[in-house]
Amino acid sequence: MENYQSSLDAAFHALADPTRRAVIGRLTKGPASVKELAEPFEMGLPSFMKHLQVLERDGLISSEKVGRVRTCRMNTERLAAAESWLCEQRALWQRQTDRLADYVETRMVRSGDDAG
Amino acid sequence: MENYQSSLDAAFHALADPTRRAVIGRLTKGPASVKELAEPFEMGLPSFMKHLQVLERDGLISSEKVGRVRTCRMNTERLAAAESWLCEQRALWQRQTDRLADYVETRMVRSGDDAG
Repeated sequence: MENYQSSLDAAFHALADPTRRAVIGRLTKGPASVKELAEPFEMGLPSFMKHLQVLERDGLISSEKVGRVRTCRMNTERLAAAESWLCEQRALWQRQTDRLADYVETRMVRSGDDAG
Repeated sequence: MENYQSSLDAAFHALADPTRRAVIGRLTKGPASVKELAEPFEMGLPSFMKHLQVLERDGLISSEKVGRVRTCRMNTERLAAAESWLCEQRALWQRQTDRLADYVETRMVRSGDDAG
C-alpha cells in the first residue's frame, strides 16, 4: 500500500510541470534521444536535463546510453496507476451525483403526487 | 493554452501527496467539515490545514464557513482535466504499441511466406 502511494506521489509530482508533460507527450510516440527531446524547448541543456532526471527518478521514463547517445523511453506503469486512481475518484463522485439526482427526482415525483 | 497548462500543473501538484489524495477520496462522497476531514489523520490541525489550503489554492476544492463550521466540497473540473490529459497520453502510447505489433506481425507473415 505504501509503495502504491509512493508511486502515485512520484507520478503526480513528475507531471506537475509543462516541460515534463511535453516530454511524456513526445515519448508516447516512441523512444527519443535527449537531443531530440530537448530541441523544442527554449531552455539550456542543464535545465532540461534536470527535468529528465526528475522524470527518471520518479519512474516515468528510463534511459540508456549507447556510445555518445542517450535514448529515453516511457515507463507506462506509473502513468497507468495515476490514470486509474483519477478514474476511480471520478466514478465515486459520479455515483454520488447520480444518487443525489435520483433523490431529487423521487422527491419531485412525491411532491407532485401530494399536489395531485 | 497557458491557462490549461496552469490548471494541469495545479491539479498534479495538489495530487502528489497521500493526505491530499485521501481528502479528495473522502470528498467524492460529498461535502464534509474540516473537523470530519481531519479526523482520520494523525497530524496536528495546523499541518492538516496546510494541505487543505494547497487543495483550495490549486483549485481542487472550495470551502465555505457558516458560523464556526467550515465545509469543504470538491471542484471536479481540475480532476477531470488531469484525467483527460492522462487518458490522451495512454491512447497515443497504445496506438504506437498497436502499430509496432502490426509491423512485427506483417514482418513475421512475410518472412513465413519467404520461407514457404
